[in-house]
Amino acid sequence: MNMSFDYTDSIAKGVSSFLNSRSPAKPSPPPEFDFAIAHLDPDSIPLEALHEALGKALSDYGGKDLAFYPHAQGFPALREFVANKLKKSRGMDVTPDQIVLTSGSGQAIGLFTQLFCDPGDILITEEFTYSGTLTIMDRFGANIVGIPLDEQGMRPDLLEQTIVDLRGQGKSPKFIYTIPTFQNPVGTDMGPVRRQEILAVAQKHGVPIYEDDCYADLRFSGDSSPAISSYDDQGMTLYSGSFSKILAPGVRLGWLAAPPDVVSHINQLHYGLPTAQFSAWATYYYLRDHMESHIEELCHIFKGKRDTMLGAIGEAMGSRVVSSQPDGGLFLWLRMRDDVNTTTLLAKARERGVTYATGQSFSANRAENNYLRLAFGHQTHQEIREGIGVLGSVFEENGALR
Amino acid sequence: MNMSFDYTDSIAKGVSSFLNSRSPAKPSPPPEFDFAIAHLDPDSIPLEALHEALGKALSDYGGKDLAFYPHAQGFPALREFVANKLKKSRGMDVTPDQIVLTSGSGQAIGLFTQLFCDPGDILITEEFTYSGTLTIMDRFGANIVGIPLDEQGMRPDLLEQTIVDLRGQGKSPKFIYTIPTFQNPVGTDMGPVRRQEILAVAQKHGVPIYEDDCYADLRFSGDSSPAISSYDDQGMTLYSGSFSKILAPGVRLGWLAAPPDVVSHINQLHYGLPTAQFSAWATYYYLRDHMESHIEELCHIFKGKRDTMLGAIGEAMGSRVVSSQPDGGLFLWLRMRDDVNTTTLLAKARERGVTYATGQSFSANRAENNYLRLAFGHQTHQEIREGIGVLGSVFEENGALR
Repeated sequence: MNMSFDYTDSIAKGVSSFLNSRSPAKPSPPPEFDFAIAHLDPDSIPLEALHEALGKALSDYGGKDLAFYPHAQGFPALREFVANKLKKSRGMDVTPDQIVLTSGSGQAIGLFTQLFCDPGDILITEEFTYSGTLTIMDRFGANIVGIPLDEQGMRPDLLEQTIVDLRGQGKSPKFIYTIPTFQNPVGTDMGPVRRQEILAVAQKHGVPIYEDDCYADLRFSGDSSPAISSYDDQGMTLYSGSFSKILAPGVRLGWLAAPPDVVSHINQLHYGLPTAQFSAWATYYYLRDHMESHIEELCHIFKGKRDTMLGAIGEAMGSRVVSSQPDGGLFLWLRMRDDVNTTTLLAKARERGVTYATGQSFSANRAENNYLRLAFGHQTHQEIREGIGVLGSVFEENGALR
Repeated sequence: MNMSFDYTDSIAKGVSSFLNSRSPAKPSPPPEFDFAIAHLDPDSIPLEALHEALGKALSDYGGKDLAFYPHAQGFPALREFVANKLKKSRGMDVTPDQIVLTSGSGQAIGLFTQLFCDPGDILITEEFTYSGTLTIMDRFGANIVGIPLDEQGMRPDLLEQTIVDLRGQGKSPKFIYTIPTFQNPVGTDMGPVRRQEILAVAQKHGVPIYEDDCYADLRFSGDSSPAISSYDDQGMTLYSGSFSKILAPGVRLGWLAAPPDVVSHINQLHYGLPTAQFSAWATYYYLRDHMESHIEELCHIFKGKRDTMLGAIGEAMGSRVVSSQPDGGLFLWLRMRDDVNTTTLLAKARERGVTYATGQSFSANRAENNYLRLAFGHQTHQEIREGIGVLGSVFEENGALR
């Protein structure tokens, strides 16, 4: 294939503004110290047990299941497993028929957004939220409105005020996207009262909630609160979770849970894209036998790395940055001096082999700012100490720690 | 979750017309004789070899690769394998960077359609074409225009006339979707000259071709022609293929190949959805060592079943139906008497435990008609003989064979 034909004018108008808004990924050498992305610890992946799990699955289901197109909602045994898990650990009452397996929770976010969002529609998120969600919302032309957080996450009073103000302008938000547990990137965790307050606002004003709960299993300390969805008696919550965090990102497996009529619409949108059987098998057969002990081990590993990173930040940056102290999840959220721009600083850090995620990438209004996110799950303790040391020097040399 | 909230008004306008246009799937007992869907022969799935392949992959790549998010375009070794395969068997010159692994070729169709099609845009297909493609095009609001086929597939003269006529009305088609090899459902196979004629029309009028080549490996007889894309020196062809047909539908793995700037746009649309590693691993390690012999075995199996089905049709329906005699693929295409309606006949067949795919489901204009498609890959020889016998009786009893 030669490449002389120019496709520019062929691109759908619906996607061209999205494509133009995103800078092309620049190929760059892999960083020595990668604190940007939530990779897991390679040593935590149970390779032999996964191979054994796949052997059981192939023997139980292989011939029959591989010859057919998988169930549109994904491997039934894994959906039943998820329904039981949600009942036990999140207080939710959903049937396996309300679960759809997805390619990571990213696909769940994409499907819900595609289902509800026309270009120009308003979607509500926390003021800082998962950058992948913002990218997807951009792609469907959403107008994103961010709600400030306090130490428990999204503020219900400001959520209500925003909905009232928007309605006053004749605009109605399509849904409220929130990460109540170990909010990404801020790390906050809503208590039971806050969860019910957020739900009450949603129910009062008739705006559904999309609850992204993909970090709920990674708790190191503090009491677990039931999912917002567990309090919902009006069918106003959409929910997603992920196996990327408790097994491996490489399995690309998550799920969504929703009221039956929403699931029926999702199945039509999702047509032809059931999740790969191998991943579903490996995940089901492994987690069926090992979930509790594996999550316990992961939390032990991540808690240790969180503490190492907090210690290293204290040593390298002293009191001139303020870090979150999350009870779980995979990230620290750092606030620097008000006039520091973490977007421009990133180029300096990269030159020295260190990456982080800028506060800008999580900002609902995409403004440059003085925050940054550090992922602590992937690097070794030694790499965390060294990398944070290098980052401290970069900040020091660029006047960011004065 | 209760279900009292009504989401009807929340659904995006862009998808609501699509959702309303599709009747909800009716749950029904599985048919005794399923000739509707291209399931494979369960006995053809190499379970032990796949397990062995996964063991090698986990040992070579497991720890490192599963801890990270996979490459956005999918497992690099498999993309290189695909590029080599396309060079060798389809005459195409593409680099691994031009390949994106997808969740079956259905996702490739969805991505290309999403990239190029705004609601109301015109897309060209064969007069009868893959029903999944029609569903996806509907979902993105396409205006589908079908081109009649002759014994070699899409007619280039009518293709050109249609483009000229559309342009005369101020309308320009976004792309031409064609299945040149063992066309689904009609079974035609374009020779080299026809392929070049179709390409010449596309190049002359500046309309890209989307070549869906997912049956190319399943050839029982006749000479293989290079892909249309192999003749393209202007970067005007988009291409997709699938492992569903030569390994197993359950792997949900296909690929697209496109000019670099299109791949770059696809990567942005496709963000967060790389194909599951397990499927890619199993496929790569298995096919690397066994592709030729496995395809040879599959073709042997399918050719035998095709012949059994042709024989059974002759016995049960005589000369009152005309069947395609395809050199490959997985389907027979049957033409019945002009006034027979295969859509209404299907209900009668289902009552007797037999299903087929109606001609209507493949029709670009969705009109009811006198054609039907029978898949011969999945059922045993005995089941094919029995099921076609039952179908013949149903047709006979309903006056369709007079």
